[in-house]
Amino acid sequence: MRGVFHQSLEDVQGRLVEIADLVTVAIEKATRAFATSDVSLAEDVIEQDRVIDEKAIALDELAIEILARQQPVARDLRIVVAALRVSASLERMGDIAEHIAQLTRMRFPERAIPKGLKNTFTKMGLLDVEVARTLAELLRTENLALVEVLRTSEDRLDDLHLSVFEKVLSDNWQGEAAATVDATLASRYLERFGDHAVSVAKKVAYLATGDWTPDTDTISVIVGQPSRDA
Amino acid sequence: MRGVFHQSLEDVQGRLVEIADLVTVAIEKATRAFATSDVSLAEDVIEQDRVIDEKAIALDELAIEILARQQPVARDLRIVVAALRVSASLERMGDIAEHIAQLTRMRFPERAIPKGLKNTFTKMGLLDVEVARTLAELLRTENLALVEVLRTSEDRLDDLHLSVFEKVLSDNWQGEAAATVDATLASRYLERFGDHAVSVAKKVAYLATGDWTPDTDTISVIVGQPSRDA
Repeated sequence: MRGVFHQSLEDVQGRLVEIADLVTVAIEKATRAFATSDVSLAEDVIEQDRVIDEKAIALDELAIEILARQQPVARDLRIVVAALRVSASLERMGDIAEHIAQLTRMRFPERAIPKGLKNTFTKMGLLDVEVARTLAELLRTENLALVEVLRTSEDRLDDLHLSVFEKVLSDNWQGEAAATVDATLASRYLERFGDHAVSVAKKVAYLATGDWTPDTDTISVIVGQPSRDA
Repeated sequence: MRGVFHQSLEDVQGRLVEIADLVTVAIEKATRAFATSDVSLAEDVIEQDRVIDEKAIALDELAIEILARQQPVARDLRIVVAALRVSASLERMGDIAEHIAQLTRMRFPERAIPKGLKNTFTKMGLLDVEVARTLAELLRTENLALVEVLRTSEDRLDDLHLSVFEKVLSDNWQGEAAATVDATLASRYLERFGDHAVSVAKKVAYLATGDWTPDTDTISVIVGQPSRDA
């Protein structure tokens, strides 16, 4: 029975990694489409989100089947429950990539990136791809050193997010309302990837170490002011 | 054993209702603080979010304990897994109420509601309180007629969300960048409550009827364009 259970867990882990890899591709394409106003790339991301959703649902079904058939307890049970949570976070990261693609498509043939923010958004996009790749690696290897890497990236994303608002709210911001709206939404989306990644990383760390920090400190930064818990 | 299990389920249900009631209070206070620039009310919401988080964590622990001790299968198992998901959605709704309170506190003593949008945001706030109250009622009574009520409210919230962008992007919008940022974030937050509520409602409906519609159609409306799935 233990052998069967561990095979099932490997299957769960393999599928989480697969979804994380798909999310990495989605974020890479979405941020590139956003930076270059590539509408067909954006369409591709929108189209492919369905695959991520389906794989997340299939993984949830597998987890429920494992709970029913193998009735794990203690740490084994927590691993399966954590897998359900990780799958929800990954699915949500896919949705956010889709939102960025939708923003790109909606503004086409105009650029979705407002003038003066190209550098910042490029940095955020590259960081997000790195975050997704690191998250997939963490799920694959359970190398806990990567948790700290993700926390550092999340901090950098928060700083970049705040810098967008500083720019938009500064006296020399010349963007029209549409540019302000785009900057606000895009920055919020790009920053959210970091929150989700850290939330997943904490679950992995918890399972490895038993050291649980509740999720309450992942409350994201809002305009111009880090939350008290950040 | 069945008796014990059903007692446990009633405990889970009671706690979900309790959290939903707290979320309703949080949304009511947050939207009122936002509308009236009441900074002490906003502080109250920020302070109380900790209680919602703690209760959600305690509920998750209870659900894991039920899985371990009573090893439910089939529908009983799905109810417990669904409870974990519902708790995550409610906790997230609490976070969003906190974000609205933070927005209010940050702008104080200025008004957080941009000029020209008071009516729209008042409508959205009232609708959000109604949504939270209906959701608590659905969890309490399992009256599935309320699922349709929530869907209708979500549609109205989406329409109001779009109307905010129409206003902000129209030629006669005279708001400064700060007002545009606030309108964008607040509208996004206020609209998200509807998505979460419908997502919870679907899980309740699924458990009652076995009719599963995956969550992929809850992708929220982005600026000026409903998502293809909306």
